[in-house]
Amino acid sequence: MVARTVDLRSDTVTKPTETMRAAMATAEVDDDVLGADPTAFRLESEVAKITGKEAGLFVSSGTMGNLISVLVHCDIRGSEVILGDNSHIHIYENGGISTIGGVHPRPVKNNEDGTMDIDSIEVAIRDPRGELVFPTTKLICLENSHANSGGRCLSAEYTDRVGELAKKNGLKLHIDGARIFNASVALGVPVQRLVQAADSVSVCLSKGLGAPVGSVIVGSKSFITKARRLRKTLGGGMRQVGFICAAAFVALKENVEKLDGDHKKAKELAEGLTQIKGLKVDVAAVETNIIYVDIVEGSKITAEKLYKNLEEHGVLVMPKGLSRMRIVLHHQISSSDVHYTLSCFQQAFTGMHQEIGSYSISTSRDVSYA
Amino acid sequence: MVARTVDLRSDTVTKPTETMRAAMATAEVDDDVLGADPTAFRLESEVAKITGKEAGLFVSSGTMGNLISVLVHCDIRGSEVILGDNSHIHIYENGGISTIGGVHPRPVKNNEDGTMDIDSIEVAIRDPRGELVFPTTKLICLENSHANSGGRCLSAEYTDRVGELAKKNGLKLHIDGARIFNASVALGVPVQRLVQAADSVSVCLSKGLGAPVGSVIVGSKSFITKARRLRKTLGGGMRQVGFICAAAFVALKENVEKLDGDHKKAKELAEGLTQIKGLKVDVAAVETNIIYVDIVEGSKITAEKLYKNLEEHGVLVMPKGLSRMRIVLHHQISSSDVHYTLSCFQQAFTGMHQEIGSYSISTSRDVSYA
Amino acid sequence: MVARTVDLRSDTVTKPTETMRAAMATAEVDDDVLGADPTAFRLESEVAKITGKEAGLFVSSGTMGNLISVLVHCDIRGSEVILGDNSHIHIYENGGISTIGGVHPRPVKNNEDGTMDIDSIEVAIRDPRGELVFPTTKLICLENSHANSGGRCLSAEYTDRVGELAKKNGLKLHIDGARIFNASVALGVPVQRLVQAADSVSVCLSKGLGAPVGSVIVGSKSFITKARRLRKTLGGGMRQVGFICAAAFVALKENVEKLDGDHKKAKELAEGLTQIKGLKVDVAAVETNIIYVDIVEGSKITAEKLYKNLEEHGVLVMPKGLSRMRIVLHHQISSSDVHYTLSCFQQAFTGMHQEIGSYSISTSRDVSYA
Amino acid sequence: MVARTVDLRSDTVTKPTETMRAAMATAEVDDDVLGADPTAFRLESEVAKITGKEAGLFVSSGTMGNLISVLVHCDIRGSEVILGDNSHIHIYENGGISTIGGVHPRPVKNNEDGTMDIDSIEVAIRDPRGELVFPTTKLICLENSHANSGGRCLSAEYTDRVGELAKKNGLKLHIDGARIFNASVALGVPVQRLVQAADSVSVCLSKGLGAPVGSVIVGSKSFITKARRLRKTLGGGMRQVGFICAAAFVALKENVEKLDGDHKKAKELAEGLTQIKGLKVDVAAVETNIIYVDIVEGSKITAEKLYKNLEEHGVLVMPKGLSRMRIVLHHQISSSDVHYTLSCFQQAFTGMHQEIGSYSISTSRDVSYA
Repeated sequence: MVARTVDLRSDTVTKPTETMRAAMATAEVDDDVLGADPTAFRLESEVAKITGKEAGLFVSSGTMGNLISVLVHCDIRGSEVILGDNSHIHIYENGGISTIGGVHPRPVKNNEDGTMDIDSIEVAIRDPRGELVFPTTKLICLENSHANSGGRCLSAEYTDRVGELAKKNGLKLHIDGARIFNASVALGVPVQRLVQAADSVSVCLSKGLGAPVGSVIVGSKSFITKARRLRKTLGGGMRQVGFICAAAFVALKENVEKLDGDHKKAKELAEGLTQIKGLKVDVAAVETNIIYVDIVEGSKITAEKLYKNLEEHGVLVMPKGLSRMRIVLHHQISSSDVHYTLSCFQQAFTGMHQEIGSYSISTSRDVSYA
Repeated sequence: MVARTVDLRSDTVTKPTETMRAAMATAEVDDDVLGADPTAFRLESEVAKITGKEAGLFVSSGTMGNLISVLVHCDIRGSEVILGDNSHIHIYENGGISTIGGVHPRPVKNNEDGTMDIDSIEVAIRDPRGELVFPTTKLICLENSHANSGGRCLSAEYTDRVGELAKKNGLKLHIDGARIFNASVALGVPVQRLVQAADSVSVCLSKGLGAPVGSVIVGSKSFITKARRLRKTLGGGMRQVGFICAAAFVALKENVEKLDGDHKKAKELAEGLTQIKGLKVDVAAVETNIIYVDIVEGSKITAEKLYKNLEEHGVLVMPKGLSRMRIVLHHQISSSDVHYTLSCFQQAFTGMHQEIGSYSISTSRDVSYA
Repeated sequence: MVARTVDLRSDTVTKPTETMRAAMATAEVDDDVLGADPTAFRLESEVAKITGKEAGLFVSSGTMGNLISVLVHCDIRGSEVILGDNSHIHIYENGGISTIGGVHPRPVKNNEDGTMDIDSIEVAIRDPRGELVFPTTKLICLENSHANSGGRCLSAEYTDRVGELAKKNGLKLHIDGARIFNASVALGVPVQRLVQAADSVSVCLSKGLGAPVGSVIVGSKSFITKARRLRKTLGGGMRQVGFICAAAFVALKENVEKLDGDHKKAKELAEGLTQIKGLKVDVAAVETNIIYVDIVEGSKITAEKLYKNLEEHGVLVMPKGLSRMRIVLHHQISSSDVHYTLSCFQQAFTGMHQEIGSYSISTSRDVSYA
Repeated sequence: MVARTVDLRSDTVTKPTETMRAAMATAEVDDDVLGADPTAFRLESEVAKITGKEAGLFVSSGTMGNLISVLVHCDIRGSEVILGDNSHIHIYENGGISTIGGVHPRPVKNNEDGTMDIDSIEVAIRDPRGELVFPTTKLICLENSHANSGGRCLSAEYTDRVGELAKKNGLKLHIDGARIFNASVALGVPVQRLVQAADSVSVCLSKGLGAPVGSVIVGSKSFITKARRLRKTLGGGMRQVGFICAAAFVALKENVEKLDGDHKKAKELAEGLTQIKGLKVDVAAVETNIIYVDIVEGSKITAEKLYKNLEEHGVLVMPKGLSRMRIVLHHQISSSDVHYTLSCFQQAFTGMHQEIGSYSISTSRDVSYA
């Protein structure tokens, strides 16, 4: 029997808080497809303000936010987008930009820190004189923080340089900002500064910020007008959407400040795991709330056995390939959960639970999570 | 100054009731993208049961429901769908099945009652022997009730005949059931019977039933598995979607019984309007909650002036072309609103308000609407 | 045993003449993908001149010509094209504009003479204010002569009116001119005048004109630049294509003058067939080289039996539905063939061959056809 | 003034020989769209036989051959193809598989020898259990010889291993065999053996083999049936296509044996160039008819100046980036041309022509080339 559950698979598994539920219960709503929902508008305006863009549009997921953004920038048949070969858009979004949008991706190698070399991007930009055989490069996509690189952050300076390259070549720059607030907090740089060079950003509210549903894409007014239409085409227009926007607004107001704690707990957990013989973690690479853990070859326990053992103790992680797992922290994981998790890992390798640091059973977790 | 507002543009403009808000506030939710949200599952199962299908999937709009359904049935490049030339899918959904899905539409003439002649459908089915130059017919779409035909209903018998034709030719049958409950109530035939021949149905909960957001598509388990994946591709997967499903569940439980009243009020309003010199209404065609009203040529007042005049009195209708308007009843339109509306029409033509029937200022409207 | 073959299925079945072969044998050629083939350029320029357009591009078929033209005009995602519900593009081209190009077709009813009512076209043009739910109308397509209407011709005046409507609404006009020379000859109006209002025309050289392969699309220089790129995308760029362009050039120079004879023979054949009890032909509708023949109900012979009987005598026609056939004349059908054909029909119905007019076995047919 | 022209830009620039012209002049042709052209059929059968596949289909270009092949294998929406990040399909075909076909590409790094690591391919294959967020891997593409890697060849063993991996995962294997005959000759392995593991191959006849136009794709009968339909959709069906098939047949019969000479001349030229100070050539990498030449940094002459200088002497090469050029040999480049070319390079760097080997003005070139 599982005494407690520590779900570390993703930061999408958070449960809405009581204040979110209260906000929903009293939200003022209207038909948002007709552009009349005041609560949606308030949220969109707030995210636009935070990101320093003209306008925003609520969408039901980060995938829809990226899909719409790419398709708006690549509205002409024959468009190509440059993006990381390890980016969320390329790997985890069903190939929608091609299979739904007919856009040709031109993946460029992602470095370990989530960047792509500026030179490599430049080489990938198609020479317009070769348009007889080349698609037309229209867009560059970045991802900040970069999930598949362990949540590492792109600096404002790096993003600016990509933005300059884009501008010089008449291209647009989109940032998949599913966890842009994590990057902002980790770098100590305002979101607005981080996305200054971007023509559009997709900001998720249902990941680390803990909203039940939704993302907001931001950009120029004309970008948002086109995005609104495309959202309707996809069937993503929702009538009285203000209810979920109300909860998302609470997430934005209350949970940004919790991210720093998530990052600290991630670091603590990573440091603890690295002391376990049989595991390998690049602690320095843990910049935000994501940890990649490798089971070293010749370890006493197989990955499969480890996951099973952890699960029996209520600790859920996300396998990534044969001997690698992903662990994600969020505001409903307490310090106690971190210690408990370390303890479970420890016993899986040694067969016995151990005190690691100040471990003790905690009761401090958000009640709405139970 | 407008004393009251009677919004007759659509049945999508209803406001959530207090019971819906209460249901949302206490909804049990989980990550629905991972298939774990119990409230979404309860709603999907309920709609599946009502329609007599194996499984259901919550989607954010009727447009998404139709788009996913058509694309699942037409999953192979080169597919063609037969649908009404006046159907919602063909006219009002951005051409998404082609522009997003690459499906070729083969529109067949819609009769005034929303049917297509069975013979015409049969002729439109492509001969597989001509596949060198023909796309492959994969699907027939019906719409019940049929919005652009004034909300008229397709009988179970008619639908069965189309279903037989589909089956005989190895085709699938999809029903756009945005207002299938209106059809069911008007015909006195259970929804399950009306959609018996269909392989999939898209059922809207945010139209006459008054849910804030959402539709459910139903079909076989394998259809729903494919639909779930496609929903993710479109970005329509939502994390803790149970909140809005909870409200939709209330709509399903509480508001079906109100549809009969909507139909009666529609009839009453239509009959009142037909007595106004300068307007033409086919009262017999008002089978559900939609009325089409024509301004006859040589009328004392232009359409533009009429709409302006009505709007000044708080009565909103939906213009459809130069001299035609659409009026839609819903559960938040009271008898008093109907009489007030008639009165406003009357004065627009005669310059003076008149008592029509038992008109008096009503206070009976749902408070959440004000 | 079949003594002779009279292939009336289509005007695509002609065989290249000796002059065409000679032109091919000596053609000057170069790499046309690099834009360097002089013979292709000569043909493209000639068709551009005849049609009064800036530039031309050789393509391998009428289908490719129409596909490229529609896609160039509808280069933005979300485009819609208005075209005849009985047009070749809508019925016989695999739905390619949608299944390959993602363009949404909006078919308008074709009248018996191949026109669409101007009013109906106007109503089908999408109101840009409704762009949230409407695709964007970008293009109107006409077909002249109109194959499925029995090769009837659109007048210059009709085309001009459609062109004015297009221009007024910021739309482009494309003409499927697969048989534009037939229309020109039948109407006694130069091709250039017939397509004056069009932004692009697809002209087939391999139908009535008898070239072995190919069509030319014409339009503005910028249209052709985009078309050339799209041709490459489709894989339609051909290296030393001058060989087949040389033959097509001969077709253009030598065979336009033969079309009048084809039309006269079509008329003669239609008149002969109408005298056969059991067949029905609208002789007045035979304006060019195509005849539609109906087998009247209660006829002595079934369609199937008739086709079999004809085929046994070497006469090939194209069945179109259950009791209708299409007959197409071309320059390799002699007067003698027409009489022989009539005789074969006659005997199929009466059981005996009859002299019809001056029938006698002919030896005048182009030797290359044997 | 240019005394002679040595066009080394590509092997597509060859001119048809007299025997090809003669074959065209007497070719037996019929309507190939109806599948009736005997000369097309003979060519298709011959290529099918050579490659050991069931059936073949003539297409107008290698691009069309690859496009059709990928689209046939990836006929279902949501398909993904694994292919080299430096492959012709990914780089030079307008992104058509996505922009026309909606297929999502998953590029894998091409090694310098044109292979992709088997492990890297395996990792790129999508886990079907992740189908909620992953597209479905359907196809792996190889290219043999590999143009962008300097025409290097994939061994039969390597191809077999990829084929086994494909089969194990239920995937198809397509080979872009634009220059498969070059690979066969260079490796001394029959074409049939090289493509044994492939489900489809696209074979170009208009590159090293010197046909004026065309490629043939081969595969199973059912593959070819689908390919034929798709060819029609693209507009690639051609009526009396036998003319160009006749020339292509000659290319197949007469020019395969010339490839070995091309390779030897390429080697000779590469060795000559490597002796020029300022140029760098990896002679060992010249396995077939393609040479990549780098201008070393600090060279006396800029790339631009070099190309201009060469062009003034009639020597045409293909620039590839800032300091790299591509040189392609073909059967209409004589030994004398090679020596002349070397001499021109030499004088560009030294300012003076030099005797290199047995250089002398040649008159042995194919007269049709002049």
